[in-house]
Amino acid sequence: MEWHKISDPNSPELDRLAERYQLHPLHIEDCRHRNQNAKIEQNPGYVFTVMKGVRLDDSGDLLTADLDIFLGKDFVITVLEDDCPEMQALIELVEKASNGESRPDQVYYRIMDHMVDTYLPVLDHYDEVIDGLEDQALSAPTPETLAGVFDTKRNLIVMRRVLVNTRDVANHLQRTDSPFIQSDMWPFLRDVYDHVARNLDTVEMLRDLLTGALDVYLSSVANRTNQVMKVLTVMGTVALPAVVVSSIYGMNVKGLPGVESPYALAVVFGTMAVATGGLLWALKRFDWW
Amino acid sequence: MEWHKISDPNSPELDRLAERYQLHPLHIEDCRHRNQNAKIEQNPGYVFTVMKGVRLDDSGDLLTADLDIFLGKDFVITVLEDDCPEMQALIELVEKASNGESRPDQVYYRIMDHMVDTYLPVLDHYDEVIDGLEDQALSAPTPETLAGVFDTKRNLIVMRRVLVNTRDVANHLQRTDSPFIQSDMWPFLRDVYDHVARNLDTVEMLRDLLTGALDVYLSSVANRTNQVMKVLTVMGTVALPAVVVSSIYGMNVKGLPGVESPYALAVVFGTMAVATGGLLWALKRFDWW
Amino acid sequence: MEWHKISDPNSPELDRLAERYQLHPLHIEDCRHRNQNAKIEQNPGYVFTVMKGVRLDDSGDLLTADLDIFLGKDFVITVLEDDCPEMQALIELVEKASNGESRPDQVYYRIMDHMVDTYLPVLDHYDEVIDGLEDQALSAPTPETLAGVFDTKRNLIVMRRVLVNTRDVANHLQRTDSPFIQSDMWPFLRDVYDHVARNLDTVEMLRDLLTGALDVYLSSVANRTNQVMKVLTVMGTVALPAVVVSSIYGMNVKGLPGVESPYALAVVFGTMAVATGGLLWALKRFDWW
Amino acid sequence: MEWHKISDPNSPELDRLAERYQLHPLHIEDCRHRNQNAKIEQNPGYVFTVMKGVRLDDSGDLLTADLDIFLGKDFVITVLEDDCPEMQALIELVEKASNGESRPDQVYYRIMDHMVDTYLPVLDHYDEVIDGLEDQALSAPTPETLAGVFDTKRNLIVMRRVLVNTRDVANHLQRTDSPFIQSDMWPFLRDVYDHVARNLDTVEMLRDLLTGALDVYLSSVANRTNQVMKVLTVMGTVALPAVVVSSIYGMNVKGLPGVESPYALAVVFGTMAVATGGLLWALKRFDWW
Amino acid sequence: MEWHKISDPNSPELDRLAERYQLHPLHIEDCRHRNQNAKIEQNPGYVFTVMKGVRLDDSGDLLTADLDIFLGKDFVITVLEDDCPEMQALIELVEKASNGESRPDQVYYRIMDHMVDTYLPVLDHYDEVIDGLEDQALSAPTPETLAGVFDTKRNLIVMRRVLVNTRDVANHLQRTDSPFIQSDMWPFLRDVYDHVARNLDTVEMLRDLLTGALDVYLSSVANRTNQVMKVLTVMGTVALPAVVVSSIYGMNVKGLPGVESPYALAVVFGTMAVATGGLLWALKRFDWW
Repeated sequence: MEWHKISDPNSPELDRLAERYQLHPLHIEDCRHRNQNAKIEQNPGYVFTVMKGVRLDDSGDLLTADLDIFLGKDFVITVLEDDCPEMQALIELVEKASNGESRPDQVYYRIMDHMVDTYLPVLDHYDEVIDGLEDQALSAPTPETLAGVFDTKRNLIVMRRVLVNTRDVANHLQRTDSPFIQSDMWPFLRDVYDHVARNLDTVEMLRDLLTGALDVYLSSVANRTNQVMKVLTVMGTVALPAVVVSSIYGMNVKGLPGVESPYALAVVFGTMAVATGGLLWALKRFDWW
Repeated sequence: MEWHKISDPNSPELDRLAERYQLHPLHIEDCRHRNQNAKIEQNPGYVFTVMKGVRLDDSGDLLTADLDIFLGKDFVITVLEDDCPEMQALIELVEKASNGESRPDQVYYRIMDHMVDTYLPVLDHYDEVIDGLEDQALSAPTPETLAGVFDTKRNLIVMRRVLVNTRDVANHLQRTDSPFIQSDMWPFLRDVYDHVARNLDTVEMLRDLLTGALDVYLSSVANRTNQVMKVLTVMGTVALPAVVVSSIYGMNVKGLPGVESPYALAVVFGTMAVATGGLLWALKRFDWW
Repeated sequence: MEWHKISDPNSPELDRLAERYQLHPLHIEDCRHRNQNAKIEQNPGYVFTVMKGVRLDDSGDLLTADLDIFLGKDFVITVLEDDCPEMQALIELVEKASNGESRPDQVYYRIMDHMVDTYLPVLDHYDEVIDGLEDQALSAPTPETLAGVFDTKRNLIVMRRVLVNTRDVANHLQRTDSPFIQSDMWPFLRDVYDHVARNLDTVEMLRDLLTGALDVYLSSVANRTNQVMKVLTVMGTVALPAVVVSSIYGMNVKGLPGVESPYALAVVFGTMAVATGGLLWALKRFDWW
Repeated sequence: MEWHKISDPNSPELDRLAERYQLHPLHIEDCRHRNQNAKIEQNPGYVFTVMKGVRLDDSGDLLTADLDIFLGKDFVITVLEDDCPEMQALIELVEKASNGESRPDQVYYRIMDHMVDTYLPVLDHYDEVIDGLEDQALSAPTPETLAGVFDTKRNLIVMRRVLVNTRDVANHLQRTDSPFIQSDMWPFLRDVYDHVARNLDTVEMLRDLLTGALDVYLSSVANRTNQVMKVLTVMGTVALPAVVVSSIYGMNVKGLPGVESPYALAVVFGTMAVATGGLLWALKRFDWW
Repeated sequence: MEWHKISDPNSPELDRLAERYQLHPLHIEDCRHRNQNAKIEQNPGYVFTVMKGVRLDDSGDLLTADLDIFLGKDFVITVLEDDCPEMQALIELVEKASNGESRPDQVYYRIMDHMVDTYLPVLDHYDEVIDGLEDQALSAPTPETLAGVFDTKRNLIVMRRVLVNTRDVANHLQRTDSPFIQSDMWPFLRDVYDHVARNLDTVEMLRDLLTGALDVYLSSVANRTNQVMKVLTVMGTVALPAVVVSSIYGMNVKGLPGVESPYALAVVFGTMAVATGGLLWALKRFDWW
């Protein structure tokens, strides 16, 4: 078995291999124009697969990287993006792991397996992020929460696209009887499919929770506004009778009841207290706090 | 028939059985890495099934436990999680019930049937929880209601995943002609499928109601805020004319009408009463309380 | 043809029939454990069908009742719930209608047809209820409207489940070539299928309208709050200048402009009127009422 | 070819034809019980089709009318609703257009084509209505807008049902090899199918836009309330310092600073202006207007 | 190979070609009635395809243009809209590119490929627009944001329709074994299909993000209203004690505590400060700002 590891898709090496193994021009073009979707295409002489690895950058945004594989009867060609140390490390890991194995389909499976293993930590990260957003939405909703929901949504959309396409690849591998993959690899490929399907399931769950977080945000803000309104109203309730009564007794009009009496002040404050108390009792009665 | 009951998936006993019955390494791995999805896989010598039991912890959260079954021509192997008394009890129950029966497929069906029976009480619990949340959303919406909606949503998502996968298992059993299951068990397996499908139906209904509860929460809070605003406005309506009129008569300006007259007070209070009454009548007229 | 009418599913009569016609134990269990979903199961000697009738109780809630039918070559067995006069009446109606007919499949069709006829009045009732809820949501949204939306939603979910399952039964009957149903009954069974499909269509429409009613409720309350806020602001606009100006002229400070002049009052009231008018004009200009 | 035009479905003429051409009793019943869904049913001797025409009444509500067609080897029977001049006109139009043609399938196609042509103007009408509702929701949301959204929603639901069923009819015609339709009519029937599918597409788009209009309504009202609140707060900001300061200087308490000074008034007004300016500056700084 | 380029669909040239190549009248009609959906129809002598190109006008609205192609054994007929320089340019580009190629299917592929290339820049534009709308919704929600969301929604609906239909065309080409397309073109047609499918994926993602932007708008406005309410309440909190206390001391009533004392003023201001401080502390304590 020959394993051609190409780490610069623009190198002439790839053209040489294309000629030697009769690789289709469209596939070479796919290798060189990055940011393809994950896909698999079966040709007479080989199987061409685009796989997507994912990782998080420092700010929690999702980055994806392509890895292209040509799997033939007796050769494997892997084409990396030239500036991605993660993919480079993954290839080295596979190389070490596939130590004594010489079959192309075993190498192919191992690469795929390692690729798929990059998905779970990312999903776990977003699960935690959404947990945090939920808590914020409930206890302290701010515009930052909203921005967080939106960013996570965008990232999950990207993640979902990667997973849907990878699942289709895995499904194709599992269902189609390819001449390049021996039957003892089938359970392992089915296992890869199960992993991806489970991940996709998780993404759908996360999206569902995210939508819920937005609803909770809105409900939570509405509830807070309601609380604020009530405080405002109660404050008004307490203050208004005092203001009205004292304004009345502040008029330069003769004959205000009790003004001359020594109990004037008691009468006035009593009126205020009764009015305020009555209003508070009425609010209580109509059961809104 | 031999029934191997393994309650510690890490015991060497499992390795011995794997060798004896030629169990696939991936299936042994599934037994040892818990928290698999429910699934069924047919191998030449046996059928491997992962089943999920559910129960509620004290705070109403959903817990799941795996039970792995290998069903062969003349053997059954059950692998439990080692710290789950519920699954242990279930196995004992099945053992007692399958008293005089010696066929592996009968044991297999009984375990499945008991497993599926753990789902209904959990769903009934959530039905009640949602009922309570609805009532709260209508009569006293608080942030706790929102948190409750969210928790229930998360639990139903887990429950749904268990049920979807279990339905697929039951569907597979019902449609595929397995050499390890005799035809007189078919109606019973179809019955299991019907149970699970009905449960899944219920979960979808509960999710639908939960979404509705959130909408009702939002609508209910909005309505309450509206009520509070109206109270505030009516209070303002009653107080403002009194404040305005008495402020005016409090001015140190000469020539306020009627100030010198003995009916001054009556005039002033009359003006206040008319203005307040007029405003209330106007609000009434525009029909908003 | 023999028609066995069993009105108490727990009677030993049913056990006798089970033995005579070799009815499957699971089907007998289904007859005795009520609240099954509508379903159809074909056995070598007979077709077993669970059908669901619906009716409204006095408070407009949906009640369902099971009716189980065994249809064989030369027999029909109907098993009723023992406390349901509606189903009893339906059976009597069918008995009268199928006067001269002696074929089991004709009786079977007639029962099904009458059963399906119980659905339309219920749907018409909910259509009216939703119409009323819409009107309330638009003109006078109260918490009762919300509770009504929620109750109707729950009932429609139940109704939908009955209809989906009944449609599957009708579809099965229409597509499968059963030995117990003669070909001249096919157009009639297709007619039943069409009825149920149309009813299901109606349920989906009602659910759609119900969701819309909730959206309208929320929008309508938001609009009302907006109106209330505007009234509050306009009232503030009218009152504030008067309060501010008269407070200023109420100060015990010397030198307020015009206080000594005979036109003091006119100046003061003029200032108030101009300020109020200016504010109202500004609000008008910014076009928000 | 014989074309029987029946404009009163209750006329005995229809019974005579039923006998002569062996029309199925269920189809005759369908003709007589109006308000069927569009459908097609193939019988040994003929094809029975229910078609739905639509039009708008003066208030913009959707009206539907049935037209039933029996298409046989050498006959066409059309059954109209007896009080629908539009359908009458349509039949006359077809009669004129199919001047020299004598084949039943050509007449059948022409009727269908004319029927389908009644859909587009209705959809165009609703497109305009929704455009208007959107504009209202953005610039002047009132309860009438909400009522308009709801009415349009109901009408589109009806329209959608007509189109879905008609598409199924057209699809059936296009796929099934009917003995009553010659192959040169196939492209024309496919054309009808395309028309209906395009219309259905438009209905889905309109429904989508309508849902959006409701969201915009809610957002727009929320935004307006926010504006009103800000105006209220700014007004409060301007007035409160003046009220507080002048109330303080209105107290009958000795020793208020500067009261005796000739600059008292300047001091007081200066304090008011500074306090108001400070508050406005603070609001500005926190960037909320 | 003959390539007939018709740039005015109403020219008699098209009629001549219709006669010569036996083009179906319905297809000629499709060429002349513009604004068809993208579609493909296979006839005995040729394949008829309607393709849709898109571009943005100056205000960012989406414009579509039809291009009709008849592909036969040895001819290609392209029919342009007569007032569309973009399509004209596209045809010229294809002509130049297909310099030395003489096969009709190659020309056909090239036109399709160039057509599909017009979609991506449009989608990128809307991606940026939605990014901007999101930012506006978060930081400065105005009615213009809402109008922008709605306009983009309408445009994406149109874009989606174009893409769905084009995907169906590409899918048909890829699956059907047409006598007019040689097998070496198949990978290229599959590539076109992949492009369109990826674009459609992007449209769905954009629609999803747009819905999210509306939710964020609503949440953001609700949050802002909440902030405004809090400011209003805090301002009330600060002012009310001062107003109440100074109103009370402004009353013309004898016996107000401390009025005669030289510390009167200190007492009064102290009371105001304590009351205001107490209220602010209470609000803080209940944790709402």
